[in-house]
Amino acid sequence: MTVRPPAEIGMTLDEVDTPALVIDLDAFERNLKRLVDRTAGKGVRLRPHAKTHKCAVIALKQMELGAVGVCCQKVSEAEALVYGGVKDVLVTNEIVGKTKLRRLMALSGSARIATCADDPAQLAALDAAAGEAGIVLPVHVEVNMGGNRCGVEPGEPALALARQVMDASHLSFAGLQAYHGSAQHLRTWEERQKAIAGAVAKATATRDLLARHGIACANITGAGTGTFEFEAGSGVYTELQCGSYIFMDADYGRNRDRDGAMTRAFEPSLFVWATVMSRPAEERAIVDAGLKALGMDSGPPNVWDEPAATYDRASDEHGRLVISGATNRLRLGDKVKLVPGHCDPTVNLYDWYVGVRGDRVEAIWPIVARGAVY
Amino acid sequence: MTVRPPAEIGMTLDEVDTPALVIDLDAFERNLKRLVDRTAGKGVRLRPHAKTHKCAVIALKQMELGAVGVCCQKVSEAEALVYGGVKDVLVTNEIVGKTKLRRLMALSGSARIATCADDPAQLAALDAAAGEAGIVLPVHVEVNMGGNRCGVEPGEPALALARQVMDASHLSFAGLQAYHGSAQHLRTWEERQKAIAGAVAKATATRDLLARHGIACANITGAGTGTFEFEAGSGVYTELQCGSYIFMDADYGRNRDRDGAMTRAFEPSLFVWATVMSRPAEERAIVDAGLKALGMDSGPPNVWDEPAATYDRASDEHGRLVISGATNRLRLGDKVKLVPGHCDPTVNLYDWYVGVRGDRVEAIWPIVARGAVY
Repeated sequence: MTVRPPAEIGMTLDEVDTPALVIDLDAFERNLKRLVDRTAGKGVRLRPHAKTHKCAVIALKQMELGAVGVCCQKVSEAEALVYGGVKDVLVTNEIVGKTKLRRLMALSGSARIATCADDPAQLAALDAAAGEAGIVLPVHVEVNMGGNRCGVEPGEPALALARQVMDASHLSFAGLQAYHGSAQHLRTWEERQKAIAGAVAKATATRDLLARHGIACANITGAGTGTFEFEAGSGVYTELQCGSYIFMDADYGRNRDRDGAMTRAFEPSLFVWATVMSRPAEERAIVDAGLKALGMDSGPPNVWDEPAATYDRASDEHGRLVISGATNRLRLGDKVKLVPGHCDPTVNLYDWYVGVRGDRVEAIWPIVARGAVY
Repeated sequence: MTVRPPAEIGMTLDEVDTPALVIDLDAFERNLKRLVDRTAGKGVRLRPHAKTHKCAVIALKQMELGAVGVCCQKVSEAEALVYGGVKDVLVTNEIVGKTKLRRLMALSGSARIATCADDPAQLAALDAAAGEAGIVLPVHVEVNMGGNRCGVEPGEPALALARQVMDASHLSFAGLQAYHGSAQHLRTWEERQKAIAGAVAKATATRDLLARHGIACANITGAGTGTFEFEAGSGVYTELQCGSYIFMDADYGRNRDRDGAMTRAFEPSLFVWATVMSRPAEERAIVDAGLKALGMDSGPPNVWDEPAATYDRASDEHGRLVISGATNRLRLGDKVKLVPGHCDPTVNLYDWYVGVRGDRVEAIWPIVARGAVY
């Protein structure tokens, strides 16, 4: 159920109730701009992944800066974004089930909708549903780049599916979904470069095989925040799907740049604002943000701006900070910024972003696709 | 934001959209009854923890079976429950911050509200807020039972706080919050028995010290699904706070009974209903329930009723099942029940329970405190 916003516009940050999901708007805007700058002139389109932010306001800001549209993972996410005015959505996922297909096709009346497929039976169901809706749906064939999640193998299996799309009455072949998810968090520049070189080889071979059979790949779409520079410079990828770059998170922050330093590509702009609710011992402070306020799958959050504190352990509603220094600012009632370990599942816990400029709440944005898992 | 329910009453389970949070109503009702039966005649009251279910409908069912009220962790949870008709709520947590305190006091006009404290400054703030609201608020002193989260140490520190409560104009001393969270998931019966014996000793010593200073503990409240039989039989605890017993989860299922067998105290009644959305290889099936559909902090879910499949790895929107058997029923589009690793954070991802009796949807219950982290 939607909860009330934890803030009002005009409040100071200190007045914002906790836990709250806070965006540092200056840092966020710098991140938005930075992706545009770093990919300018490379001949690639930007289609940021909205699964990160689940917010139509942010999607429209990305499109104002030149993105051709956004990606999402679920039909209900696409619905929430289209309701919010987004006119071009690629569902980078396999949609299975009659109810979902009917809803996906209906959306095509209000926006350009495309999706992915990796199975002949799934393609047949897409074609039938598009036919019932009287539309032609653009479909990308998803190719396994090495993550071993969804996707057909490169080469002949992808060709067979592409042919099936070409032959279907109500589908159009849009190209290849070629996202290499497991490359994003490889820590060194060289590891990521090597992984994407492998993906580029697979995408190229598949593209060329299709071309030899008279099938043109209008779009080869993929890339994430950890690797986008490699895909952008590949000459093969035509569209980038980076999502986390707008916020960064503690886990992406552990990636290294080419010079071995912690990545400076983007900066943390998303925080969970939390209160010290118990201070039972010198070496222990308890904050009011635990498993229901933070995605913990990629490790605990970093404590911002308080080097003496380490987020040690989360329970449902509590976070235990270990305090290593005798001097620290953490008294009962004090508030701290936590940089989430993983931004996407953290965002999915909240209904509202609190956008802060300096110390002042400037924006409250609804997370319209929060909980949109269907 | 609240999403639409994934089902309608009268549907068959197979028609329910996925991922959905499904309750097997028969198993759920057996669990509800079993806690009542197993604690009958022990001289303890039941006050189940609503942080597990976040649902006023379920809270009222627990109270119909004799519970004196429910617990929760956050003011916004208490609000959602009181709005839903629950008349007695104990916030088993330290509430810090003026906004929260004002809201907590306001609720006292519509229900019996009590809370906890572990710090003199926090008690002073509670007293001031209760005074402003013109009420007398019942407060439990939280005592550290060994979990090293919140709570003052047993004995003198607890006595000092209890005295402060007694002296405060707008607080009444309700007793001790003596929950031993870290004992709940100790795997063997003997480990749990030993941990709770320690907690009982601390609670007893503190109660007796307070009594020697003329302060009576009307209530000693604690216990969870893993240990309630020890607290119930202690002669010291007067109230039990078990929450997960209604659903169980894969992690609680790994606890052992006295005879060394997997626990039979309660049975799994909560499932995430998921669809096989990709079947890219014999040994791999991908379901549509990942990190945004399952709490993964206590490990991945168990796959129900399909021994050939193991939930191996979650990404945001995908779950990868490893298929070990040549014979299995998992084809593209098939649906499976997943038993969440940890029920509480899983529930917090959904807006609706889909209550199923046999194969038929009988109930849709709103998870009114979903996202209520403030």
